[in-house]
Amino acid sequence: VCDAILTLAVRGAPAIGIAGAMGLVVALAAHDADSTPQLLARVDDLSARIGSVRPTAVNLMWALERMRRVAHATGESPEMIRSALRREADAILREDRAMCRRIGEHGLSLVADGARVLTHCNAGALATGGMGTALAPVYLAKEAGRTVSVFADETRPLLQGSRLTAWELVQAGIDVTILADNMAASLMREGRVDLVIVGADRIAANGDVANKIGTFPLALAARHHGIPFYVAAPWSTVDPATRTGAEIVIEHRDADELMSTAGWRNAPAGVSAYNPAFDVTSAELITAIITDRGIARTPYHFAG
Amino acid sequence: VCDAILTLAVRGAPAIGIAGAMGLVVALAAHDADSTPQLLARVDDLSARIGSVRPTAVNLMWALERMRRVAHATGESPEMIRSALRREADAILREDRAMCRRIGEHGLSLVADGARVLTHCNAGALATGGMGTALAPVYLAKEAGRTVSVFADETRPLLQGSRLTAWELVQAGIDVTILADNMAASLMREGRVDLVIVGADRIAANGDVANKIGTFPLALAARHHGIPFYVAAPWSTVDPATRTGAEIVIEHRDADELMSTAGWRNAPAGVSAYNPAFDVTSAELITAIITDRGIARTPYHFAG
Repeated sequence: VCDAILTLAVRGAPAIGIAGAMGLVVALAAHDADSTPQLLARVDDLSARIGSVRPTAVNLMWALERMRRVAHATGESPEMIRSALRREADAILREDRAMCRRIGEHGLSLVADGARVLTHCNAGALATGGMGTALAPVYLAKEAGRTVSVFADETRPLLQGSRLTAWELVQAGIDVTILADNMAASLMREGRVDLVIVGADRIAANGDVANKIGTFPLALAARHHGIPFYVAAPWSTVDPATRTGAEIVIEHRDADELMSTAGWRNAPAGVSAYNPAFDVTSAELITAIITDRGIARTPYHFAG
Repeated sequence: VCDAILTLAVRGAPAIGIAGAMGLVVALAAHDADSTPQLLARVDDLSARIGSVRPTAVNLMWALERMRRVAHATGESPEMIRSALRREADAILREDRAMCRRIGEHGLSLVADGARVLTHCNAGALATGGMGTALAPVYLAKEAGRTVSVFADETRPLLQGSRLTAWELVQAGIDVTILADNMAASLMREGRVDLVIVGADRIAANGDVANKIGTFPLALAARHHGIPFYVAAPWSTVDPATRTGAEIVIEHRDADELMSTAGWRNAPAGVSAYNPAFDVTSAELITAIITDRGIARTPYHFAG
């Protein structure tokens, strides 16, 4: 599971949280002779190990902490702890499905008939247990009979937009156009984008948002053109302990992601690479944050 | 030559102009039985054909028009016309080399010792007959003994930054770091960029600049962070007949450039693509335009 999260076979903040919880259950199954104290120590140890793989993903910490609390609160036989953890992981998945739909319901009013939505990376069904976060309002608009089309940034370096977002929207019968990340500003200038909706990996108490690299310049371009810029994310993405985006530690990934594509080496030897996985968008650039608990607008003051 | 320009085997506005002029000479060689009227008609016809390949590249038009004028002004024997055209093409190359160095000399004062320069696409030696345009001040800063380092946007979809700019800077012994286009805003936010220098494919009379797609969002990010944003280009890139950037027709390229990389198909069937080759940066976002005739600052009023 750690490897799947590290290599992005599982990605998307909610999906990572679900995988972390499920992964903990699976990992414990290999230790069925543990006593209760041994099992609890192992829960703590494995949670820390899984949580360390993607430190920016607050949902992962959140899901693992929730699992740890259940394990320690149950505190009876190893069997009872195991089955409580299994139920908890199932609940996390089930709640995630419901959370997605609620985000969609809250965001639906923002997606008018004929809306042209620009999104970045993948914050859709492939990132969650349900219909996604940023794409949930789009799916519900389609469900409500509205015409909606999506522009999907390809999202370098790993192309989640053209590989994942485009794929799931084609499956859903929604019109989708891909573009390189650096083309979004031109599209806005041409008047072809009505709103932007992106996901979030972590939301600070003041509304600053850490999300996939490329989100911040998109917010700058939206602001320049007067286009609404929305973030859609589960409430669990809010981290009240993080006061502002400046406190968020950004994960830097391997240079090779920029140096080669599909086995084709495109950069010369002797060159360095700058490859942060996320950026921080300041709250003042964000028109509203759509969560499963409703729509928050600036000035943001998130509490736990 | 048309094919080389179309497939970007030759790219970079000045290099395209040189290739167009040289290409005309080569193409005429295949018609050595032409009479003077036949030859002049062929010059017009071939110029129009070569010029139509990349209509945004004003240097191409400029070089071909210059060749046409020489042919018609010479107006004697076919042999004299041919040798005049050959001399003119050689002069265009020679002048281009001198032009690059003059841009470098004018821009040198902007590149202090220790400067960290962000650039986009390739406006270096590989784009011109000489040391480049955007990179000329960098090369001269190095020549003057200053320490200078470069951040090179990879420049999707064709990766001219990581393939070409990184390569030529490594050859020159200049420290170079590549990044995805969508990472430049984060780098600026971290305070790691002192100035931006990019090239230009066409400059309107009011100072609006058409350049490789991705230039415009870079200018927005530079403005947001208070970082100087410079355009470096030969005077021949200025097109006084184009009043503003709104008049510039943007070339749209094949969707396949976004759909697959090195033979790896990364987008699903059923998806569309938006793939403009250039964008327009408004003059008010440009701190100064460095040409071989000096540095122009806002408000720009370019005349012929």
